[in-house]
Order: sequence, then C-alpha cells, then structure tokens
Amino acid sequence: MNRIKAFAPATVANVSCGFDVLGFALDKVGDVLELELLPNQTIIIDPINGPGNLSTEPEKNICGVVAKAMLDALDSKQGLRMKLTKGVLPGSGLGSSAASASVTAFAVNELFNKPFSEKQLVEFAMLGEKLASGTAHADNVAPALLGGFTAIRSYDPLDIIRIPVPDELYCTVIHPKIEVRTELSRNILKKQVELKIAIKQWGNVAGLVAGLYSSNYDLIGRSLTDYIIEPVRSRLIPGYYELTKYALLAGALGCGISGSGPSVFSLSKGVPTAQKVAEAFNEKATLLGLPFDIYISKIADKGARVI
Amino acid sequence: MNRIKAFAPATVANVSCGFDVLGFALDKVGDVLELELLPNQTIIIDPINGPGNLSTEPEKNICGVVAKAMLDALDSKQGLRMKLTKGVLPGSGLGSSAASASVTAFAVNELFNKPFSEKQLVEFAMLGEKLASGTAHADNVAPALLGGFTAIRSYDPLDIIRIPVPDELYCTVIHPKIEVRTELSRNILKKQVELKIAIKQWGNVAGLVAGLYSSNYDLIGRSLTDYIIEPVRSRLIPGYYELTKYALLAGALGCGISGSGPSVFSLSKGVPTAQKVAEAFNEKATLLGLPFDIYISKIADKGARVI
Repeated sequence: MNRIKAFAPATVANVSCGFDVLGFALDKVGDVLELELLPNQTIIIDPINGPGNLSTEPEKNICGVVAKAMLDALDSKQGLRMKLTKGVLPGSGLGSSAASASVTAFAVNELFNKPFSEKQLVEFAMLGEKLASGTAHADNVAPALLGGFTAIRSYDPLDIIRIPVPDELYCTVIHPKIEVRTELSRNILKKQVELKIAIKQWGNVAGLVAGLYSSNYDLIGRSLTDYIIEPVRSRLIPGYYELTKYALLAGALGCGISGSGPSVFSLSKGVPTAQKVAEAFNEKATLLGLPFDIYISKIADKGARVI
Repeated sequence: MNRIKAFAPATVANVSCGFDVLGFALDKVGDVLELELLPNQTIIIDPINGPGNLSTEPEKNICGVVAKAMLDALDSKQGLRMKLTKGVLPGSGLGSSAASASVTAFAVNELFNKPFSEKQLVEFAMLGEKLASGTAHADNVAPALLGGFTAIRSYDPLDIIRIPVPDELYCTVIHPKIEVRTELSRNILKKQVELKIAIKQWGNVAGLVAGLYSSNYDLIGRSLTDYIIEPVRSRLIPGYYELTKYALLAGALGCGISGSGPSVFSLSKGVPTAQKVAEAFNEKATLLGLPFDIYISKIADKGARVI
C-alpha cells in the first residue's frame, strides 16, 4: 500500500463541566487526508482544499509536523505527499487542528501497517495541537482518533478513558462564523478558581460521567453546567445566552461552549429534539444577524477511519 | 410500632479526588439508636453509650436536633426517648456525626411509617451535620443513609447520585487515635486553587467514577489522587505518607484521607490484599507509636437499617 485516504471527525471538547478533560466526536463533519508515500525523505503538502489560510510549509503545517515526527520515530527513509481537505473550519471551536492532526496520525500509521498504539497516535497528534495553540492538549485529539466520549484523566502519564454513550444521545452544534482564537480564549481565563466553585464543577463531572454510564439523560442534562469557563468565554460569543436559552426551551438536555468557542453545542435525547434545537438555533441566530452553520450529529462511535 | 432499633454505618467522605462530593459506606462499624415513642412532646436523650463527651441536651445533640426537626415537620404531638450507642468515634474522620444524624433520620422515619423520601431524610440528617461542624454537608450522610458509593452533584437543589461498586472492592481504614477537629481541618484549606490543579482533580473524578462503573480496579487506583486537600490536611496526621506508602507497597489500589482525617483509607481488590494493607498499617502505626483502630470492610451496599 502506498496511498491512503482517511477521515477524522470534528469534536466537542470541554463539554461544559469537563474543561480540558472531556470531549466527544461528531459524525460526518471532519477533515479528509490523502497520503501518498514518496521514495525520498521529503514532505510535500498540496494546497489545502477548504477555507482558512493554512500554511503548506511542512514545519508550519499541523499535518506536516505530525507526519514528520512519525517518520522520524520510524527512522523512515521515505517521504509523504499530503492533500488535506478541511471539513472543520479553523477557529470554529470544533477541533479543527485536532481533526487535521488526528487524521494525519491515523493515516500515517495505517500506511506503515500500524506500528504505533492508539495512545502513541494521540501523542503524535498532540504535537499538532501544540503547533496550533502552543499547548499540547488531548481533549480534542483523543475523541477525534478514538471516537465516542473520552476523558483525559492525566497527561503525565497520558491516561485516556473511553466513556460509553447512551444510544439516543444526539448533539446539535451551531457555529457562528466569527473567529475566536484559542490562545485569546485561553488567556482571558482566570488562573485561580475558588475552591467552593471547583467543588461544584467536579460534582458535575461526577454527574456527567455517571449519567453517560447509566443512560440517565436527565442527569446528563443537569450536569452540563459550567461555573468556571462559560461565564468568561461566553462574552466572546455574541448572543450566547440567547442561543442556549432557546435550545433548552426546545428541549435540549443541556448546552455549552464547544472547545474554546465560538461554536455552541447542545445534547438532546433523540433526533426529533436535536432537530427542534437546530431550528431554535437557526431562528435565533438569524434574528441576531449572525452567519452560521448548524450540524446535527450522533456522538460518533468511530473516530479516525479509512474512507 | 412504638419502638425501633436501627443502625447507620461509618462512612469515608471525599475519597481523595472528590472533596465534598464523593463518599461511601462501611460495613458493620456504625452507630446504633434505640427509639421509643413518648405520648407528650418531649425529647429525652439517655446518657450516650460510648466514648466522647456528647451532650444529652436535645438542642445540643445531633440526634435531638434531627429528631426535633422531623417531629416538627410531621406536626407531631408525640415525643421520643433516644438511646444512642456510638460505634463511630467523634473526630475520627469516619462520619461520626453523620452516622448519628443518619440513624436518627432513618429510625424516626421508620417509626412514623415512612412519611419522608430518601432525599428528605438526607436533608434532615444534614441538620445534624450543621450542628456538628457548622456546615450542612451531605457527603457523609448520603452514603450513611443510602449505602454504597455516592456523589453529591449539587446542593441547590440537592442531587445525590448512587454509583455502583465493583464486587471485589474492599476498604481498609486506620484510625490513628488523635483528634482532628473538622472545623480546624476545614479552616486550613486554601480558599483558592489554581485552575490547572483543579483540572487535574476533576480529571481524576471522571476517572474514579468511570472506574467504579466499569469495574476497572487499576483505573480506580490511578484516580485516587488528590492535588488539593491531601497536601494540606496530611500535615495534621502524623506518619500520613509513611502509612500510605506502606499500604501501596502491600498492594492497595490507592489511599487517601477519610473525611477531614485523621483516619486514612485505602481501597483494594479482594479481601487478601485488604488484609495485607491492614497488616502494613498495623506494623507502621505501631512503629510510629500511634494508638489506632483498623477496620477492613466491603463497601456496604446497604446504609441505615433496622436491626
């Protein structure tokens, strides 16, 4: 095999109470990467298919950086030609850099006949996250690679937990097309939190994980509460509280900021409710005069895959 | 029925990462309360059977306060004679006040033919906690009343989650007989935590809850890590790090401070390991010259009960 085409999904990280820890994979929306093995040690990145202004210089491109690290680890004498089609917009808060990093880690591993473990793939993909935002976080790349709902229990050592998802749990996401830079949305966070607020937050983390394991949709909804990040980051998202209010009125279990925003996610029980939430998002965002995309998705059981 | 005898168990609250949220019930060790219905509106508390110096004045006694609130809520014209036998030592960190409050809430409810819900019983028992420590916390009374492993997701409204426990999970507790007052051990905590530390803590909460649901003993062990409370409170417990080190060497999955201490708990897979941990605790505490009690217990499925 000297060619492969793979896909890695968009992801929702943080999931309200689980800042920097929880994340889940969407279905269908994602990045596609075509790889071709080259006989010499070069990495060539074709012009990127999709919006945004991403560099095609290998050392400045997420796919290039991830692929280079993997080729080095394999001590390979070969190179790669890469063609990326962006399905996740940079700056959307839907794990754009993670989708690119993950699809690369997955595809290179497949092309070389799976020399790396899942955990190693997450570690390679984290290098792409570091290039994109300065921080090697894993809460998007873990679900983008492994699918489903994941928790990063620890970074040192890296410990990824896969949490089961109830059958009827659907996500509705609205991406208001304004750019929120991950770095800015990280820098405005306070570095200290009150202990009593942190306790409320981990109470909700316990509730959310318990709700997912026990298919208790109401508990999932009650636990989607964020006392720490949402009050600060929501300021960067015009109409955030209107959007979430109308989603809840339409029957959503709960809502939150996807990653560092500006996308807003909601979870619902069943497709009909997820669609009603999409209509509510649509109506409200139209009134607010925001350009936007809306996605309805099951929480995807599969992450990165060959297509 | 005008008499009842009931039991409520000792409990381990906090459980390392889950400060003020998580707790579980022990087997066998606990408080016993004998209640007798009186024809007039008085509460009489017989001298307390057991160590400690607890008041028998109804308004200064945990059982008295809880019983009075319940009689008032029932608009009862009757009274109660109460005889408490303490099996949980005050100031042990094993939920002494919670055992007394919970056995009262449970027994009064039984005697009046169960007019209150489980949640209401927790709320009544919390009044006893408030009398004892100034704070109406529920992380001991919830497992003391309901049994098993519990999480307090929220106080407003009160939301208690019962988390399943793997069959072979056993607890070994050592109670070094020094007094650590709940109020003091609460006052020495810092009121602010670093966000990055809080994130590690809720990563472990996610891991612990996932480990309990999936019977993943190793994950339970890895998640029993406390970055916030243990570094401060362990100073009040002579030999804390020696005790936990030797418990881990004996095969414990993990360790932590029980409640506000000084008791130290460990969780193990299976009775033989729990016994080895007990031996390690015994040996080390003897070397340290501490007087102590040691208990080995399954995490009790049942909480308060008629005996």
